[in-house]
Amino acid sequence: MTHSLSTHAPYLTPAVHRLIDMALEEDIGSGDITTGHLVAPGTMGRGEIVAKTDLVLAGMAVARCVFERLDAQLQFTADAADGTVVAAGSVVARLSGRLDALLMAERTALNFLQRLSGIATHVRRYVQLLADSRIRLVDTRKTTPGWRVLEKYAVRMGGASNHRMGLFDGVLIKDNHIAACGGITVAVEAIRRQVSHLTRIEVEAADQAQVREALDAKADVIMLDNMDLAAVKQAVSLIGGRALVEVSGGVTEANLRAMADAGVDLISVGALTHSAQAVDISMDIQ
Amino acid sequence: MTHSLSTHAPYLTPAVHRLIDMALEEDIGSGDITTGHLVAPGTMGRGEIVAKTDLVLAGMAVARCVFERLDAQLQFTADAADGTVVAAGSVVARLSGRLDALLMAERTALNFLQRLSGIATHVRRYVQLLADSRIRLVDTRKTTPGWRVLEKYAVRMGGASNHRMGLFDGVLIKDNHIAACGGITVAVEAIRRQVSHLTRIEVEAADQAQVREALDAKADVIMLDNMDLAAVKQAVSLIGGRALVEVSGGVTEANLRAMADAGVDLISVGALTHSAQAVDISMDIQ
Amino acid sequence: MTHSLSTHAPYLTPAVHRLIDMALEEDIGSGDITTGHLVAPGTMGRGEIVAKTDLVLAGMAVARCVFERLDAQLQFTADAADGTVVAAGSVVARLSGRLDALLMAERTALNFLQRLSGIATHVRRYVQLLADSRIRLVDTRKTTPGWRVLEKYAVRMGGASNHRMGLFDGVLIKDNHIAACGGITVAVEAIRRQVSHLTRIEVEAADQAQVREALDAKADVIMLDNMDLAAVKQAVSLIGGRALVEVSGGVTEANLRAMADAGVDLISVGALTHSAQAVDISMDIQ
Amino acid sequence: MTHSLSTHAPYLTPAVHRLIDMALEEDIGSGDITTGHLVAPGTMGRGEIVAKTDLVLAGMAVARCVFERLDAQLQFTADAADGTVVAAGSVVARLSGRLDALLMAERTALNFLQRLSGIATHVRRYVQLLADSRIRLVDTRKTTPGWRVLEKYAVRMGGASNHRMGLFDGVLIKDNHIAACGGITVAVEAIRRQVSHLTRIEVEAADQAQVREALDAKADVIMLDNMDLAAVKQAVSLIGGRALVEVSGGVTEANLRAMADAGVDLISVGALTHSAQAVDISMDIQ
Amino acid sequence: MTHSLSTHAPYLTPAVHRLIDMALEEDIGSGDITTGHLVAPGTMGRGEIVAKTDLVLAGMAVARCVFERLDAQLQFTADAADGTVVAAGSVVARLSGRLDALLMAERTALNFLQRLSGIATHVRRYVQLLADSRIRLVDTRKTTPGWRVLEKYAVRMGGASNHRMGLFDGVLIKDNHIAACGGITVAVEAIRRQVSHLTRIEVEAADQAQVREALDAKADVIMLDNMDLAAVKQAVSLIGGRALVEVSGGVTEANLRAMADAGVDLISVGALTHSAQAVDISMDIQ
Amino acid sequence: MTHSLSTHAPYLTPAVHRLIDMALEEDIGSGDITTGHLVAPGTMGRGEIVAKTDLVLAGMAVARCVFERLDAQLQFTADAADGTVVAAGSVVARLSGRLDALLMAERTALNFLQRLSGIATHVRRYVQLLADSRIRLVDTRKTTPGWRVLEKYAVRMGGASNHRMGLFDGVLIKDNHIAACGGITVAVEAIRRQVSHLTRIEVEAADQAQVREALDAKADVIMLDNMDLAAVKQAVSLIGGRALVEVSGGVTEANLRAMADAGVDLISVGALTHSAQAVDISMDIQ
Repeated sequence: MTHSLSTHAPYLTPAVHRLIDMALEEDIGSGDITTGHLVAPGTMGRGEIVAKTDLVLAGMAVARCVFERLDAQLQFTADAADGTVVAAGSVVARLSGRLDALLMAERTALNFLQRLSGIATHVRRYVQLLADSRIRLVDTRKTTPGWRVLEKYAVRMGGASNHRMGLFDGVLIKDNHIAACGGITVAVEAIRRQVSHLTRIEVEAADQAQVREALDAKADVIMLDNMDLAAVKQAVSLIGGRALVEVSGGVTEANLRAMADAGVDLISVGALTHSAQAVDISMDIQ
Repeated sequence: MTHSLSTHAPYLTPAVHRLIDMALEEDIGSGDITTGHLVAPGTMGRGEIVAKTDLVLAGMAVARCVFERLDAQLQFTADAADGTVVAAGSVVARLSGRLDALLMAERTALNFLQRLSGIATHVRRYVQLLADSRIRLVDTRKTTPGWRVLEKYAVRMGGASNHRMGLFDGVLIKDNHIAACGGITVAVEAIRRQVSHLTRIEVEAADQAQVREALDAKADVIMLDNMDLAAVKQAVSLIGGRALVEVSGGVTEANLRAMADAGVDLISVGALTHSAQAVDISMDIQ
Repeated sequence: MTHSLSTHAPYLTPAVHRLIDMALEEDIGSGDITTGHLVAPGTMGRGEIVAKTDLVLAGMAVARCVFERLDAQLQFTADAADGTVVAAGSVVARLSGRLDALLMAERTALNFLQRLSGIATHVRRYVQLLADSRIRLVDTRKTTPGWRVLEKYAVRMGGASNHRMGLFDGVLIKDNHIAACGGITVAVEAIRRQVSHLTRIEVEAADQAQVREALDAKADVIMLDNMDLAAVKQAVSLIGGRALVEVSGGVTEANLRAMADAGVDLISVGALTHSAQAVDISMDIQ
Repeated sequence: MTHSLSTHAPYLTPAVHRLIDMALEEDIGSGDITTGHLVAPGTMGRGEIVAKTDLVLAGMAVARCVFERLDAQLQFTADAADGTVVAAGSVVARLSGRLDALLMAERTALNFLQRLSGIATHVRRYVQLLADSRIRLVDTRKTTPGWRVLEKYAVRMGGASNHRMGLFDGVLIKDNHIAACGGITVAVEAIRRQVSHLTRIEVEAADQAQVREALDAKADVIMLDNMDLAAVKQAVSLIGGRALVEVSGGVTEANLRAMADAGVDLISVGALTHSAQAVDISMDIQ
Repeated sequence: MTHSLSTHAPYLTPAVHRLIDMALEEDIGSGDITTGHLVAPGTMGRGEIVAKTDLVLAGMAVARCVFERLDAQLQFTADAADGTVVAAGSVVARLSGRLDALLMAERTALNFLQRLSGIATHVRRYVQLLADSRIRLVDTRKTTPGWRVLEKYAVRMGGASNHRMGLFDGVLIKDNHIAACGGITVAVEAIRRQVSHLTRIEVEAADQAQVREALDAKADVIMLDNMDLAAVKQAVSLIGGRALVEVSGGVTEANLRAMADAGVDLISVGALTHSAQAVDISMDIQ
Repeated sequence: MTHSLSTHAPYLTPAVHRLIDMALEEDIGSGDITTGHLVAPGTMGRGEIVAKTDLVLAGMAVARCVFERLDAQLQFTADAADGTVVAAGSVVARLSGRLDALLMAERTALNFLQRLSGIATHVRRYVQLLADSRIRLVDTRKTTPGWRVLEKYAVRMGGASNHRMGLFDGVLIKDNHIAACGGITVAVEAIRRQVSHLTRIEVEAADQAQVREALDAKADVIMLDNMDLAAVKQAVSLIGGRALVEVSGGVTEANLRAMADAGVDLISVGALTHSAQAVDISMDIQ
């Protein structure tokens, strides 16, 4: 019931293919009782996917996969690429294949596309606020469960960067970890002995004392957690380039630029993913 | 790797259990390299889930399931029920169990809870606009792929109703179906012969002529697709109670009340699900 | 290990594809130790599927899928369509492909075909007893676990109709539900508030008092449970067209016609699926 | 979403557990819209499973598993054991647990039990025809796809024996294999070199010449395919105890005894599984 | 996410396809962050798989499958066949396809090939020690979990034979079984009544008394467990051809030949699989 | 059919649980035809797992999981911990539970334990050669497909460290990547723009020119690929502490110490995993 991994974009990992299958199955269930009874099996059709609003496109390959799951011979031609700005009214893809497949896959394909493009479009707004800043705007793990790889891809299409993908590919020592093992120094040393040399170690600091302790422990990255602008500046000065500095928590579109100008290296914003809304994309079938 | 179906709420269908597993796996992957190296396996901990903003709660059972997947003996006590309004600062649940499980499940559990409560909170705003109207506000199939059952549940917790769950449990004859089989009358008759007697038939109408044809074909429900208020009123008058009337497309918070007062039976709003934003919910671990 | 959904018939849902995989795996297991050691990998072969008795055909697409799972290039030509009567001795399909695939898939494909055609053939007998009656003969949920969609499809191919597909696409309030929530009226009202407007509500009634209560509660369909002919007639008269009437329980080939003539709308017969026997279909390989 | 393998009977293999999950999912789908809206989550209930006709019981552990999947704490007490004859009206099991679980699992559990007991009951009739014969009555691979292990278990509960479970645990060289590799002698030798010493080799013979060739090739078992009684007797005499003899094809209840008395060792009958009908078993819930 | 079963070798069972999927997923995870960012999606490439040491080749079809999972159109040409001796420096396969697929599949494909060829090469050494002996050298169930079918295939490619595949396709009564049911005689009789006539019964014997009891119970095969050469000879003489004799335990390359010459039928050696080391095979990509 | 994730060690990721299930299923298949027919379901038993040779233990939690999959109530008491040296003859665990579960799980549990302990024991030998060196000995991706997480865990238990887990959690730019994108400088810059700030970048260098280019591109780690000792020393001197230095290829037990003393930071050895042999561990059941 699942698709070959042999597909059109590197972000289509095995887990993404499973999500596509789940999505089709939750919609089709025991069968499409409208299409199944009205469209003769052999009937062919054509369709166009159209942006109904200005947007940053993301997710074309996943949309294509959704259609191909129901019609392996379907032709899908993209008229725009992920990461590009598309104007309202533009056709972004043309499809041709079995009509029943087009009708049964339409909603699921659009649901992927409208959400991923929604995130890319939302992220682009933040990115523009940071124009000509050397700072790196990054996402968080506040993503839709099941969608981690997809949403982090959409963030990149919007022009921002990714923080770690999950608990497995980056170390982030938080307050509870520190409490559990008896201090930042102990924690950093324990981790350094055990993780791969390709993984950097980031420590969350709530105040200047913790910043100092993280610095002494030679953390690679220090996250300033929910600090105001003054505290951020003080920490940046204290760190003095000896570690990367990430600001996290309490960053809004309003104070984003000021934070960026405070000399930090990274700003992480959960809203990039958790507060994006879908953009309007529809499909015309002939 | 999967959870028993023997759980705490009827909306936790087999597919939802699979989504929970996928969500944990996408975050844990090849292992939590921070917690796994810092927290001794036997260490116990406690936590509280706290609303950081006023919200309508939804998804407590799914959050509980996430934690129980990693610690089958974990104690989870709910202080508030799904569908209730919770004030900023309220503790909504207290947990006690293995500390590593709490730390590894935290983000995934909150990601479920913040999105589902976000939808319920968003829906509640629309519902309040319709206070003392007999009209039924319903969702659409514009849901996050993989989340259909969960998001439709959150819509109910917000106080609105569900349209069909998928392509399998309700007939909705759209323009492309009509074109494919040669007219509304033919379509309705073909479907009526073939679907279960427990399934009503809804027909999408783009203009008054189609409304009339649907009416003559004895459609159970007629969906007025993207009509303006005047056209809606004309259609309602034409239908005269012989079919349920649904308004769909172009409904916003601004014109919602006017549409409701036009005498229709149902208003469907895709934004209930596709434009909700997560609400802020966090977890304190001791 | 699973097949593309991109297949030849609308009843081949994701769950049916999974059943096909399970069926092949339970037969092949750790390998076909006869064919695997005797047939050189590249050898090609041809086969014919032959009806050994008069039958109503059902399941050709699922049989085709079974073969294609083991040889994606296999040619399968159907000589008869599902739902048609086929005489003993007729070739219903011709196949050409890898000989090892033909030999390994043969039994599984025939097992599907002989059971589904067995149901269609069995159902056709009941349907003929109802010739020129406007009544709808429907199946029940007494199907082979794992085979719900397939067996309900075979029922349609036999000429009868389907009751609800499962617990998810139709409401049927039974005695235990009524007891659990305090009466038919309460139950119908609670359900009506909560289910989709596209779902009708059916109530099971054991006697005339319950028929009356269901009628007052405005049930859409009333099921007369295990009533004799006299009671059925009395209920039909009481209902007077204000709800659809279904007779269920105790219906046999002997009393089927009399029940149909009593003025009910639907007769449900569990035996359509649970008492069908396989018909004889074989395969000749050259 | 799946059950622990830690269960109550050796025939509950991993594949059987998957089938149980599929069966529950096909019935529950996106949720039980009757029970889910009418039964308060905490409500407890009791039930009894009752034989409605005389039958040979089979499948109690699988029925129990079905209920436990939805309520891990459910109490299930068997009043009769698989393989025993149960009189109409007998209670075969008593259950106590969550009412919603009882209602949602009921149909699926009964569907397993009625089919497996149907096979055991059907098989018992054949077995009785062979009373005081030393012959072994065996099933075939003509089973319901997905149900191989279960149906073969039911055959044993009915008192007959199993032929090989699938293509993997026994060699059966048929006409097409012989044709593909150039003769019985070649085939038997090739197989003997390659299969495990724990696997016997059976050869299908269509006439006395093939019987002789199989004998010369030292086949362990010779299957007389579709031979009449006279031919069977001739073959038995020719073989003279140097190989086990199986009769297959064309065996009915009418000629079963005569075949048995012809001196063969095994009779295989596809009808044991493919022509069994469900027996009537119901559940009373209080 | 899974491969069609329609593949290139009979040992590629459904379970092997699942293992291939797991292997790719454990390596790719949330995406190849080197290749994904450096290789443009459409770029094509070529590669050669090269033996870096003399070896017996095994697993070409599984390696091919790994590549085809990531590029369904990839061309794979084998220059050597499984079971043949390949000299260091030889090209064993040439590939051509998408460069990103080649790079992402390379390590997984080689990991399969180097381990399976490692087993075949290791086994071949034992086989040569037994040259011109009529004895059968067999493997055990001491295989890498998840790899049973693959490793047993590699054993055959090395020139030895397989013992049973698992617990399901051969009876081996061990000391604990004997203790649990009260003696060899009881055990053999109970099993003979219940298992298929195509399955032979083997009994493990620790001393001559047990050999005699197994012989009296008419065991088909008697396994001499951890006996020294003298005891083996005594047992062979006692058995006198009335059962097959297997030697198991304590067999090394040093005493293998002597055991073989003691007149036994089979020698089983766990080291064939559990002590094989990978051979060096690499891939050159242009 | 799968186990709760709620288990006894952090290395038991979802994928490891799936491997455990696959392993049990490949051995049990359609049922244990010895145990299933000889051991009465309720019979209880006890067992001891015993080291038959000196070894470094690894995999106790996975062995425990295997038994618990078949008997959720089984008691498992460890007498030794992973990573410790255990002398031949030592009992490492005591078990008590259902006898059929003990017998059916025994081989699979031991197969996991003997291979993982075999790796840990093998690695320990290398580690001892490096005693009082500050160098880090690391594994590679040359692991058994399906076993990545497990084998990397065993490497840690043996006292060495892990290189990246897969393609997803560390960047390693190899010759083919460099060729595909036009040079080390371009490659490092492209990657640095796109990967998470928590991921270090390693570049493979074949000669001193490439070492210099990698250094200029500010690679975090430089891998000296298949260089001899002289070249390694030259590169170390050239790099001068500005990047971590890894030696890879051609390292054997013989030259390991010399390489370590050449001033590199890491030595990676594929043989740690691909050339380990199982150690002898058995189980006594009473």
